[in-house]
Amino acid sequence: MPEQIAATLIQALPYIRIFAGKTIVIKYGGNAMIDEELKKAVMRDLVLMRLVGINPILVHGGGPEINEAMKKLGKEPEFVAGRRVTDAETMEIVEMVLTGKTNKSIVAHLNGEGVQAVGLSGKDANLLIATKDTDNGDIGFVGKIAHVNPEIIHTLTNGGYIPVISSVAVGADGQAYNVNADTAAAALAAALHAEKLILMTDVEGLYRDFSDKSSLVSELTASEARQWIADGIVDKGMIPKLEACASAVEDGVPRAHIIDGRRAHALLIELFTDTGIGTMVR
Amino acid sequence: MPEQIAATLIQALPYIRIFAGKTIVIKYGGNAMIDEELKKAVMRDLVLMRLVGINPILVHGGGPEINEAMKKLGKEPEFVAGRRVTDAETMEIVEMVLTGKTNKSIVAHLNGEGVQAVGLSGKDANLLIATKDTDNGDIGFVGKIAHVNPEIIHTLTNGGYIPVISSVAVGADGQAYNVNADTAAAALAAALHAEKLILMTDVEGLYRDFSDKSSLVSELTASEARQWIADGIVDKGMIPKLEACASAVEDGVPRAHIIDGRRAHALLIELFTDTGIGTMVR
Amino acid sequence: MPEQIAATLIQALPYIRIFAGKTIVIKYGGNAMIDEELKKAVMRDLVLMRLVGINPILVHGGGPEINEAMKKLGKEPEFVAGRRVTDAETMEIVEMVLTGKTNKSIVAHLNGEGVQAVGLSGKDANLLIATKDTDNGDIGFVGKIAHVNPEIIHTLTNGGYIPVISSVAVGADGQAYNVNADTAAAALAAALHAEKLILMTDVEGLYRDFSDKSSLVSELTASEARQWIADGIVDKGMIPKLEACASAVEDGVPRAHIIDGRRAHALLIELFTDTGIGTMVR
Amino acid sequence: MPEQIAATLIQALPYIRIFAGKTIVIKYGGNAMIDEELKKAVMRDLVLMRLVGINPILVHGGGPEINEAMKKLGKEPEFVAGRRVTDAETMEIVEMVLTGKTNKSIVAHLNGEGVQAVGLSGKDANLLIATKDTDNGDIGFVGKIAHVNPEIIHTLTNGGYIPVISSVAVGADGQAYNVNADTAAAALAAALHAEKLILMTDVEGLYRDFSDKSSLVSELTASEARQWIADGIVDKGMIPKLEACASAVEDGVPRAHIIDGRRAHALLIELFTDTGIGTMVR
Amino acid sequence: MPEQIAATLIQALPYIRIFAGKTIVIKYGGNAMIDEELKKAVMRDLVLMRLVGINPILVHGGGPEINEAMKKLGKEPEFVAGRRVTDAETMEIVEMVLTGKTNKSIVAHLNGEGVQAVGLSGKDANLLIATKDTDNGDIGFVGKIAHVNPEIIHTLTNGGYIPVISSVAVGADGQAYNVNADTAAAALAAALHAEKLILMTDVEGLYRDFSDKSSLVSELTASEARQWIADGIVDKGMIPKLEACASAVEDGVPRAHIIDGRRAHALLIELFTDTGIGTMVR
Amino acid sequence: MPEQIAATLIQALPYIRIFAGKTIVIKYGGNAMIDEELKKAVMRDLVLMRLVGINPILVHGGGPEINEAMKKLGKEPEFVAGRRVTDAETMEIVEMVLTGKTNKSIVAHLNGEGVQAVGLSGKDANLLIATKDTDNGDIGFVGKIAHVNPEIIHTLTNGGYIPVISSVAVGADGQAYNVNADTAAAALAAALHAEKLILMTDVEGLYRDFSDKSSLVSELTASEARQWIADGIVDKGMIPKLEACASAVEDGVPRAHIIDGRRAHALLIELFTDTGIGTMVR
Repeated sequence: MPEQIAATLIQALPYIRIFAGKTIVIKYGGNAMIDEELKKAVMRDLVLMRLVGINPILVHGGGPEINEAMKKLGKEPEFVAGRRVTDAETMEIVEMVLTGKTNKSIVAHLNGEGVQAVGLSGKDANLLIATKDTDNGDIGFVGKIAHVNPEIIHTLTNGGYIPVISSVAVGADGQAYNVNADTAAAALAAALHAEKLILMTDVEGLYRDFSDKSSLVSELTASEARQWIADGIVDKGMIPKLEACASAVEDGVPRAHIIDGRRAHALLIELFTDTGIGTMVR
Repeated sequence: MPEQIAATLIQALPYIRIFAGKTIVIKYGGNAMIDEELKKAVMRDLVLMRLVGINPILVHGGGPEINEAMKKLGKEPEFVAGRRVTDAETMEIVEMVLTGKTNKSIVAHLNGEGVQAVGLSGKDANLLIATKDTDNGDIGFVGKIAHVNPEIIHTLTNGGYIPVISSVAVGADGQAYNVNADTAAAALAAALHAEKLILMTDVEGLYRDFSDKSSLVSELTASEARQWIADGIVDKGMIPKLEACASAVEDGVPRAHIIDGRRAHALLIELFTDTGIGTMVR
Repeated sequence: MPEQIAATLIQALPYIRIFAGKTIVIKYGGNAMIDEELKKAVMRDLVLMRLVGINPILVHGGGPEINEAMKKLGKEPEFVAGRRVTDAETMEIVEMVLTGKTNKSIVAHLNGEGVQAVGLSGKDANLLIATKDTDNGDIGFVGKIAHVNPEIIHTLTNGGYIPVISSVAVGADGQAYNVNADTAAAALAAALHAEKLILMTDVEGLYRDFSDKSSLVSELTASEARQWIADGIVDKGMIPKLEACASAVEDGVPRAHIIDGRRAHALLIELFTDTGIGTMVR
Repeated sequence: MPEQIAATLIQALPYIRIFAGKTIVIKYGGNAMIDEELKKAVMRDLVLMRLVGINPILVHGGGPEINEAMKKLGKEPEFVAGRRVTDAETMEIVEMVLTGKTNKSIVAHLNGEGVQAVGLSGKDANLLIATKDTDNGDIGFVGKIAHVNPEIIHTLTNGGYIPVISSVAVGADGQAYNVNADTAAAALAAALHAEKLILMTDVEGLYRDFSDKSSLVSELTASEARQWIADGIVDKGMIPKLEACASAVEDGVPRAHIIDGRRAHALLIELFTDTGIGTMVR
Repeated sequence: MPEQIAATLIQALPYIRIFAGKTIVIKYGGNAMIDEELKKAVMRDLVLMRLVGINPILVHGGGPEINEAMKKLGKEPEFVAGRRVTDAETMEIVEMVLTGKTNKSIVAHLNGEGVQAVGLSGKDANLLIATKDTDNGDIGFVGKIAHVNPEIIHTLTNGGYIPVISSVAVGADGQAYNVNADTAAAALAAALHAEKLILMTDVEGLYRDFSDKSSLVSELTASEARQWIADGIVDKGMIPKLEACASAVEDGVPRAHIIDGRRAHALLIELFTDTGIGTMVR
Repeated sequence: MPEQIAATLIQALPYIRIFAGKTIVIKYGGNAMIDEELKKAVMRDLVLMRLVGINPILVHGGGPEINEAMKKLGKEPEFVAGRRVTDAETMEIVEMVLTGKTNKSIVAHLNGEGVQAVGLSGKDANLLIATKDTDNGDIGFVGKIAHVNPEIIHTLTNGGYIPVISSVAVGADGQAYNVNADTAAAALAAALHAEKLILMTDVEGLYRDFSDKSSLVSELTASEARQWIADGIVDKGMIPKLEACASAVEDGVPRAHIIDGRRAHALLIELFTDTGIGTMVR
């Protein structure tokens, strides 16, 4: 009913006011990037954010599509400590899939909703500079973000564009590096002095006890997050996400969120309602 | 529920997009200016409009408060053809009430909602220039809008302020004139190249047959409006409103609306839902 | 004679140069606001100031007109320690008279001289924020300036407008407060980093001995002013004016003047001739 | 020797002056995109162009790399009338290779030379809009440029970036289309009001008689080009290039060139010396 | 007396308003350039003009100083039809005196009054382009203004500087030409869309009958001026001045004046009083 | 050959990049200002510098032309410690020659090459303020630079003009002073935060042993320069040049050069090749 629509808009008012003119970096991934209905909902959430004056920045990876492409080419994906072993041939596939396929598909979907999106990889304008990550031994062209050059993002957002960034970084020598998309999003959020980092996942959030779905943690500090990881009580799959959140907060981002991308319009719910969803690190 | 909130925002999306950056002139009056709940709802509607990039411009009269002040001063309000007979003393009261009381009350309410409003009368920066209206004989300082100088409005909206304008105009000699607020709003809408003129009233809209509440006219053209008035089938109280709408449309305002200000959030419902409310002249 | 005109302009040259681009806050009041000839002279002085590149800002009260309106409404003005006892009804009258009548009359006069003036009250854009003044007990809605938000003044002067401000301030709750116009002018001068504060009065200036017209003080420092007041040698009517001057100077305004508004073109004489008139606090 | 260096710079002076501030669209391809030495020379030519105030815009295809990728995936490239038969799977490969690999390799090379390059496909900000090309029957997702939205290019060049564009366009529905890079470069040159279009090829230019290398045509008009094609005297491989040049000139680009990319620094020689190289259409 | 000063400023007010923001080109010469008192008066007039928002542009010749320099160097000044016979050596002297001495003396005087003046010759930024004037046979490097490049003047006035221009123009080959300062001022006034051209002379103005000092013509049209010259009734010395005025008016300058520079503050009297002095061509 | 031209441009690339957007102050003098071929080469070097984004500022003296003019006027040039004895008459000649002849000749030559040059003396906009130099007793109007007002230079370079400045300064009283051009250039370089100061001379550079041409010093620090002068091992003619360089470096100019203006295109060789020429102070 029209009255309810109006009432809802008015309920969202204080949140719209808070975020107007702010930058929000979103790691887009999981089911929200696969399910057609969810994908469409995300695109519209981004359009709405832009219209109420928010600058959304999208960062994405694309594991499933990479695996599929590798298999077509007869290569078996291999992982060490959750990171993809990335020889030169694999890196080429990663880059082609993420930057040439996944990225442009998101861009085309956003443009279809009437905004203007521009896709970038970390190579463009030297946006994401990486060094080789040898934390797990030499597993090839796997990189750590060493530096972010955010100027191109400002150029694009000032021009009214939504930037969409694939998680490929560049080394000093022009070599492409495969970087974790959560980590890349965190680094970008810090470099852009973003108001929020939001990681879209396929879980509800962080559980105090992973086997007990009622133990969802709605809020913790960055130092608590670091402690919990050190104490070994964080589920392995959640560690890099929680680390990304902690690191963004440590670098000055006021709030970082892990939200459930399987829920339609999770972004709007997080931003514009007083329902806290997922887990917030601050 | 959060999902419904999100869904509602998404429903409003296409409308938000259409009006972003546009100017909408609103004649504020009737119950919406008297009832405390309705007043608050209007203020929030204006704040939301501003946040999604609309430039709302408020024009108001204030008949009941003028009458009340006159009575306190022992003067009996007198009307000819619906226009207040306005001798010099009455004009002074009109101006003090509208510009010194009603206007500033609206300004303070808006500021209380966190936006920045600035109140003006038609004297400020020669915004509304009037000549004496003698259509009903000499009934004193009753004026017709002869010219609008809209520069001050642009200065204020560019500075991020919401202008609130009392229906007092100024003659060539600095004399104040009492002008009809609907007409003043129409003239402003035309001078500002507004996207819409909205007149808030205490009726649902225009009825084909005033005694039959089911005969509400949802849409008509400016020339139809002129014809209906000429044909004598428009209720007397509605004539100046319908004329204001027709004249705004004839001067290039795409759409002019008569809406029911007794309905909470009537502005948002008109702007952001597909429910046509009231009567639209185009 | 033309030669004398030219010679005069040349004499004013050094003063014009000094004040070009500077802001000067003027408390307008007394006979200069009542006598038609004096009023016209003040308006022209302001126009000239604007043309030679000065930003004049006008602040006004309007005691006599308020008293007159109160009497018409059957209310007897009452004062405690020189401040008007201001119950809710009185406050409404004060606001209507100052903002709706006096202010707009000044605006119309200025516009009639070919400049563009815009009238404001302290409510507009939250220009003057007040808290209740209880120095003399509870005498109603009498306020002290707690904060000035000068942005709207910059917006207007950058747009080429002369701001005219009535001495009505606003409390945190939107409540109107009656504030002393001299004090409001001093607070504005400080907030605007004005070059000068000029208070127009109906006396020649400050006398060392009020009964001896030859004891006019042409210059004193802010701390001397404070001392003289403490020593009880300042005439009661002059105390708030001298305090306003001292406080402006203490807050960084280089010079504050009390001048005789009964003298035609007192503003120009003060600004553009080497004749020191009135009393200067520095 | 230093004196010769200086003398050379001075010889280039008039040409530098002519092109300062101008946009030049370059179709990059052939050996110049494969041979490492030539590639490096092109990158430096572009850097120099940028430093002397030219806005170079790079457009590229990447036929050999697409063929290679298809073969790895067990697909046999197929052509009709010189256009690649492009089923959905092939289109995905084309897009991944051009936008994800070739484009980013060029970007990284340019950035390695100290400028700031940004890679785009025609999908980004809806830069290149295509409709299906059925001139040779239905050969799949092969497109014709229907419209160019050049705003993103202006945003990037104003920001100091060199845009590098892959020849992938987008249909109304978000579908990717494989477009001819020469044609895309011509359409961009027209939309950007470029001073020049330069097509880098692996031949010296257009021959009057393809079997006689001494019959190189150094200059012809767009209408002569159209006539020669109609007369059947243009070598088949050269027809799309000559058509691209003619169409750019017809759309207002002053000069279009077919130059030999196998020659090191062919771009600088064309731009900054009085040696006419290749074939110019005007 | 202060009151008179103020009254005078107010009398000048309407004139100040008319000329604010306007460009006025002044040919400075005659006694006003020689007599120390008059010189000082002119400098102050210019400073005042600048302070009230006028853009004064000064053009000067310097016949007497040239003659003096020539005599020191043993060369006898020679004239044909009032134009100086200008061989190469004479041209060098003319340029050195006008640009190196007279011009810089004026600049230093203006700067001494607290404004910022910049001296130019017609060679600077190719301000005044001349062709050889052979109307009186070959009398050497005597030129006619063929073109004005006014951009440098806008750069200087926008920067707040007063331009002072010597009447030396430049030919296509870089050769200096001696041009008439009245004519140069007229050409500049037209190219700058000046509001006024003012020629300072040593006569009261144009006389209908040169022998009858009571026959001063206060106003005539450009076509009347042309007719009078054709009719032979204009004094020979006045012809080039009247022609300069007529030509400025024909090229769009609203009013051109011949005024008596021997009168102190003649510029201010002309601009800021209602006393018409000299002769006006319109 | 075209390939060599291209190769040369590419060699210059790194140097062009370093100096883009930087200010370089050049003292122009010696044979490079007399020999027609050298003069033309310098002009073109300046044009090229401008085209590749450098802001060149030219400062010049003109001893030989002054001597020549003095002789024509029957005055014998006289020097004390290398400084010209400058009585009032001599000062007038100096100013006329430098500002009226030499300066405008350089301006016309530059304009002939297609750039826009504007000539100034230190009097214009009070660019160079001097006090009397009495280091060698009273030798007349010989000045020391006391202050530089560089705003006019920024106005001109922002407008795209090349400033050309004669070595005449102005005293507090408007009096012209003859200043050393090397010293003036050094003071300007410091005031403009220039990247380089280049003094063009008629020697190869500084020799450790003036009689041994193989002892050219290619580089020394400012403090070494001061020490060498104190130690008396610097050739007398070179002392003011070396002092100018040292003083510029001490005031923050990164590098100051003494180069041989007799060599064609010495400026380009210094700036754009890796051949160090002359002597560099840093």
